Amino acid sequence: MGTALARAWLAAGHSVTVWNRTPARAEPLSAAGAVVADSAAAAVAANELVVVCLWDDASVAETLAGADLRGRDLVNLTTNSPGEGRARAAWAAERGARFLDGGIMAIPPMIGIPEAGGYVLYSGSAEVFHRHADTLAVPVGTHYVGPDAGAAALHDVALLSAMYGMFAGTTHAFALARRAGVPLRDFAALLTGWLTAMATTGVEVTAEQLESGDYDTDPPSNLAMQAAGNPTMRRTAEELGVSPELLTPYFALMERAVAAGHGGGDGTAMIDLLSH
Amino acid sequence: MGTALARAWLAAGHSVTVWNRTPARAEPLSAAGAVVADSAAAAVAANELVVVCLWDDASVAETLAGADLRGRDLVNLTTNSPGEGRARAAWAAERGARFLDGGIMAIPPMIGIPEAGGYVLYSGSAEVFHRHADTLAVPVGTHYVGPDAGAAALHDVALLSAMYGMFAGTTHAFALARRAGVPLRDFAALLTGWLTAMATTGVEVTAEQLESGDYDTDPPSNLAMQAAGNPTMRRTAEELGVSPELLTPYFALMERAVAAGHGGGDGTAMIDLLSH
Repeated sequence: MGTALARAWLAAGHSVTVWNRTPARAEPLSAAGAVVADSAAAAVAANELVVVCLWDDASVAETLAGADLRGRDLVNLTTNSPGEGRARAAWAAERGARFLDGGIMAIPPMIGIPEAGGYVLYSGSAEVFHRHADTLAVPVGTHYVGPDAGAAALHDVALLSAMYGMFAGTTHAFALARRAGVPLRDFAALLTGWLTAMATTGVEVTAEQLESGDYDTDPPSNLAMQAAGNPTMRRTAEELGVSPELLTPYFALMERAVAAGHGGGDGTAMIDLLSH
Repeated sequence: MGTALARAWLAAGHSVTVWNRTPARAEPLSAAGAVVADSAAAAVAANELVVVCLWDDASVAETLAGADLRGRDLVNLTTNSPGEGRARAAWAAERGARFLDGGIMAIPPMIGIPEAGGYVLYSGSAEVFHRHADTLAVPVGTHYVGPDAGAAALHDVALLSAMYGMFAGTTHAFALARRAGVPLRDFAALLTGWLTAMATTGVEVTAEQLESGDYDTDPPSNLAMQAAGNPTMRRTAEELGVSPELLTPYFALMERAVAAGHGGGDGTAMIDLLSH
């Protein structure tokens, strides 16, 4: 990911100094016009804007331990939790740096290709975000979500969580379809259309209900009616020899919500049951 | 759902005879021009095309026990499993009826509104499907998926499975976002865009890999790299007091797939691990 970002900045004519723990990884960037620093500290010293994209949050502290961060605009694109993002912001402030945390909603092939639709969520110093807005927007879209340095990580993790849930669902669905001998490309086309339609309506309704606090909406297809279909869902998996393990907790939560008196709603109450 | 379907046919000028276990439910349809039969058997006797939409598969046998099905085109829109659909087709054949099974991918407000994008999956007798194609297409779109009477239920359950996985993901995501105090409508807009983008690319890739049998594709963001983010996903849920229960089985399956040597792929191998 770091290489993809550096390439995009170099291609746009920015002067870039790079450092990688594994020097061979920096060589192609050197050929593309980057200055290769001998150490992380030297890379930090080269420019006001410092972008770090490392393995995990602990690597950030280790890598920058010997660097002088005073006066630097530190942009951290390393995957982290909201708490880690917030703690890293305090750590940077103690060392005299301004801090912006980022969560990358893209994979490397999407970097430098705006029409691929990837973006980076940013939070923390609005000053850093605005000062470098044009530079940050070179490799991929940007989306600032607030001054709390943990907010970018929160959005990142929440969006990935939803995606993994969807992938769990598609994993189960493909397992069923393959066992049943269904033509899988035709099935994929139906699946994409169905998920896209359901994502749009379901997500908007949930946000409105959470904000209004009114879940008792008596929808045409309520949670009790949906949960009544769970035995068919389980039976189908059993008939086809597919483990229901990925969906079992959601079915159980639906049934807990109905038992708790929320069968007449859309299922938004399940979000309360998940939070303790 | 039965009421919504009957209303759509009445509005299109079809002659419709209805029966409901609870006679009061049929009254509004009577006002709209439907003939209300005294019994399920009388309703079956009224027309060649018989559409049943009941609580579950067992209700179909109970409700039609006294009806003469000979020469009837029986279209079963009751939620069922593929095995139940197939068994019901044999049951109908023994009674002299042609049989078409259907899975409704819509909720009642979508019936009669073509632009809402709902449809019914049909499988079983192609003869019945084609003979009544125009009539069946009146309330909602139609999609015939083959002569196996279990195929409509398979597609129905598989699409719903994927949707419930996605809803499990969005339930978790909203629980995180609310606990973090994120503006939920803004979050919902990001969530819809992200899920739509990920549904499109992910599903197509999976279908291609399952059909080719080649999962060892060395993608830029492989399963091992994704699974390396699982601790951050779990830690974020813990920081915010959100139970990870809906995603735990998917994280575990990712890690099992990596341990089994599939870390360099896209995760398609997880579908094999789910099938026994």
